[in-house]
Amino acid sequence: MHVPLLLTDFLDRAVALYGDKEAIIGTDEVMTYRKLQDRVHQLSHGLTSLGIEKGDKVAYLAPNTSEMLEGFYGVMQTGAIMTPLNTRLKARDYRFILEHSESKALFVDDSLYHLVEEVIHDLSLLEHVYVHGNSSKEQPSYEQWLSSFPTHPFQREDLKESDIASLLYTSGTTGNPKGVLLSHRANYLHAMSAMHHLQVTDKDTLLHVLPMFHVNGWGSPFYYTANGAAQVMLHKTDPYLILDKIQKHKVTILHMAPTVLNMVMEAYEEIKPDIPQDVRVVIAGSAPPAAFVRKVEEEMGWKFIQVYGMTEISPLITISEPRSEEEGLSREEQYLQKAKAGYPMIGSRVKVVDELGDEVAHDGKSIGEIITRTNNMMEGYYKNPEATNETIRDGWLFTGDMAVVDEAGFIEIVDRRKDVIISGGENISSIEVEGTLYEHPSILEAAVVAVPSEKWGEAPHAVVVLREGETIGEEEIITYCRSKLAHFKSPRSVTFMEELPKTASGKIQKVVLRKPFWEKEEKHVN
Amino acid sequence: MHVPLLLTDFLDRAVALYGDKEAIIGTDEVMTYRKLQDRVHQLSHGLTSLGIEKGDKVAYLAPNTSEMLEGFYGVMQTGAIMTPLNTRLKARDYRFILEHSESKALFVDDSLYHLVEEVIHDLSLLEHVYVHGNSSKEQPSYEQWLSSFPTHPFQREDLKESDIASLLYTSGTTGNPKGVLLSHRANYLHAMSAMHHLQVTDKDTLLHVLPMFHVNGWGSPFYYTANGAAQVMLHKTDPYLILDKIQKHKVTILHMAPTVLNMVMEAYEEIKPDIPQDVRVVIAGSAPPAAFVRKVEEEMGWKFIQVYGMTEISPLITISEPRSEEEGLSREEQYLQKAKAGYPMIGSRVKVVDELGDEVAHDGKSIGEIITRTNNMMEGYYKNPEATNETIRDGWLFTGDMAVVDEAGFIEIVDRRKDVIISGGENISSIEVEGTLYEHPSILEAAVVAVPSEKWGEAPHAVVVLREGETIGEEEIITYCRSKLAHFKSPRSVTFMEELPKTASGKIQKVVLRKPFWEKEEKHVN
Repeated sequence: MHVPLLLTDFLDRAVALYGDKEAIIGTDEVMTYRKLQDRVHQLSHGLTSLGIEKGDKVAYLAPNTSEMLEGFYGVMQTGAIMTPLNTRLKARDYRFILEHSESKALFVDDSLYHLVEEVIHDLSLLEHVYVHGNSSKEQPSYEQWLSSFPTHPFQREDLKESDIASLLYTSGTTGNPKGVLLSHRANYLHAMSAMHHLQVTDKDTLLHVLPMFHVNGWGSPFYYTANGAAQVMLHKTDPYLILDKIQKHKVTILHMAPTVLNMVMEAYEEIKPDIPQDVRVVIAGSAPPAAFVRKVEEEMGWKFIQVYGMTEISPLITISEPRSEEEGLSREEQYLQKAKAGYPMIGSRVKVVDELGDEVAHDGKSIGEIITRTNNMMEGYYKNPEATNETIRDGWLFTGDMAVVDEAGFIEIVDRRKDVIISGGENISSIEVEGTLYEHPSILEAAVVAVPSEKWGEAPHAVVVLREGETIGEEEIITYCRSKLAHFKSPRSVTFMEELPKTASGKIQKVVLRKPFWEKEEKHVN
Repeated sequence: MHVPLLLTDFLDRAVALYGDKEAIIGTDEVMTYRKLQDRVHQLSHGLTSLGIEKGDKVAYLAPNTSEMLEGFYGVMQTGAIMTPLNTRLKARDYRFILEHSESKALFVDDSLYHLVEEVIHDLSLLEHVYVHGNSSKEQPSYEQWLSSFPTHPFQREDLKESDIASLLYTSGTTGNPKGVLLSHRANYLHAMSAMHHLQVTDKDTLLHVLPMFHVNGWGSPFYYTANGAAQVMLHKTDPYLILDKIQKHKVTILHMAPTVLNMVMEAYEEIKPDIPQDVRVVIAGSAPPAAFVRKVEEEMGWKFIQVYGMTEISPLITISEPRSEEEGLSREEQYLQKAKAGYPMIGSRVKVVDELGDEVAHDGKSIGEIITRTNNMMEGYYKNPEATNETIRDGWLFTGDMAVVDEAGFIEIVDRRKDVIISGGENISSIEVEGTLYEHPSILEAAVVAVPSEKWGEAPHAVVVLREGETIGEEEIITYCRSKLAHFKSPRSVTFMEELPKTASGKIQKVVLRKPFWEKEEKHVN
């Protein structure tokens, strides 16, 4: 008999088995799972009273607060689609995403309200805006609104597992972000696999470092809830605050981008906190050097777990935990393996293939593209069948990440096929940045490439050809970009050329532009 | 995008990531996962050459051998349905099951061939019989037959996740066993949940104590394979052999019925083997006393994990591992909790309900029936829609097990609604045994009830009313039953009455018959 795979089941289990556990730890407030569900029911009742129906999009712009966590379940109960927004974008990005997603309601944290203040009135479909937190804005207070609805169980929409649970905007090769549609089933099966490989239990306490707007916090609101783990919120990515919360709440596990871990490591070295419990850190994004892994494991005594994925696949599909086969390796050899993207988790097939679709040799040298056929696969890009068909072909999703495979079968990412720069865990479309540069009256041609950055892994770098007679400098171009683009997307440096190198057919040879910056590096991506 | 959940993926992963691991440890032979897959391909080629097609049933009668393990995957690749047979039945049972399942092929271990020798010629649909092992029987040798097929990858049938993977016959309330149809999806989702809760990893070595014919060895050939664990075969349930293999192969985990654990504990006490590795034992069937748990954990130093389930649900749905909420309990209190069936695993909702369908109070006293709505649900009973509709109602499966729930939410089984006796982990239909008794010319009336047994948990006991003038005794009746029934189904003891107690409507009051045997026990089921 078919029983649909629905994410709402996870909170039900937490309430049934851990209802009285003080599991949701905010800055001031501590909530039990039962209290969380009460609020979730209130939210669902409230959304229904606003006319939100199955299939409608509800946008969230918030740091990792309990309001954000309850949003996932409150929205899903109504059959609406959770649409979390990156908190580091510019007004025009928010306008595009809110418009493209046709969001009917927006819940926004008081501290981020200024980011969308100027756009929310322009959007004809956006009917409702509520503000999390206590400040008095022109928009109504969420807390006041929520408290007007009953806590009795909300009569859930009848959902199929193929119904969409979340819509996530991600920057790709084209200028505008693409909306990734993830079903209940994809998120559910991802949760089953991730909880197993990360060995999540009810004894865990997660510190929500990774933003929940990033692929639903890599699915963490689903599988930590299902297991009845405690979840500590984090309003601000501050390394001292992170260490403080780890100590105070006996945190056992954290997910984060390597750049954040780097900051935490520096703060750790400075204050040397006493953290007696076992801690494991789950890292995705750029692959760190082995020395980084050694430092985490030996100096901090934490377990380092590298994973790999992307928004389109819910997101995790590989893990680098040494297998039974690696038990005989020395520590240093294990650190080398741990620094790689690793091998497929259960539920995902992963291959590295050449241009003919054949698997590359497992020799640590032959480069191919990572493709996957996974239970975690998206349904497609919202209103963009062309991009969907380009990305999913013959049942396999093409990640655009170029990798080698070593003899043990561990995948290591070495380059990126698409024009995407990953800086501090954020995707940047080089084409979007180039588009902004081309709008500048003094610029004739522009190309944006990733260059290595000690702090951010990669940083966007602009190569510019000025129009005849123009004389603007690096600082002026950077300042110009920052006025138009999110700060993290703006070039960190600029070089000038007389002419950009091109192929016979006129395509800019980015490989040539990138080469001098990466000559001293082992890989061509960070 | 929908990617079907297929069990064949699990072996693919083992080969891709653990292909050269010497993981399949038989009595004489050791095989890598790659070698296992070679043989699986040979078997699939062979089955196809016999005309086996998608949907056909292929029966297996074997102890826990590597031939049995490869059978699962070899059969599934062709789209055929694995139909494992209990090795403790009588000829007439095998005739019924092979006929009812319409099995086209039978693979039988040499040591068990005599069990089916007399019936295989009567079955018109059973076209092929191959014998595992070296002895020269009238039927062809499996090994010789298998070796004539190539090891190159078999072109798999195009399978849907709702396609049936296994057909398992289980004794229920009616005399004839019922065939439980489990889909790929049900087995796959059960595997995802079980591997997580049992924390299976590639560092595990499983000793296959639990027969693979019992609900596919509780799914162990699926999730230990998916994780690339080592799997040690066991041809014979002998406690000394079990301890020897645990030592020799550094076994870390075993699944078994409590009666087998009891034998292992006795042998352990006798020979006091040196077993340095961590071992966990997974126990289902009857719930043991807390003293039993203490002995395992303190004297043997093994971790005791009680689970609960039944064939119709793939089978496991609850686990008794102390939660974060039980961490403050004393050891003795934890043992009491561990001895219960426990709480729902992820993927299964479990309730204990009264006759009106309302959940009973969590007071450790109010008795209700265990019902479940689980991802692991069967598709139904083969060719028996009536029994299916009786068992699955409104999306919930009624287990027939009666239980109380304590204040912490732990379920404890106290009685059985259906006329099933569970002896040494085997289901016995009391109605089937009664049917045999009624065939005896001297017997007028008979009722069979479960009585407590130190060795087997429960044992079948017959209460008999003789025809006037008849004088046969207990021994004669037991001997008679053993000539007709599997040994484990035959009554271990007989009492005689002038008349059986009946209700006003004439129904035999088994409760009254059972009462004197259970008065000293805490529960009314073992």
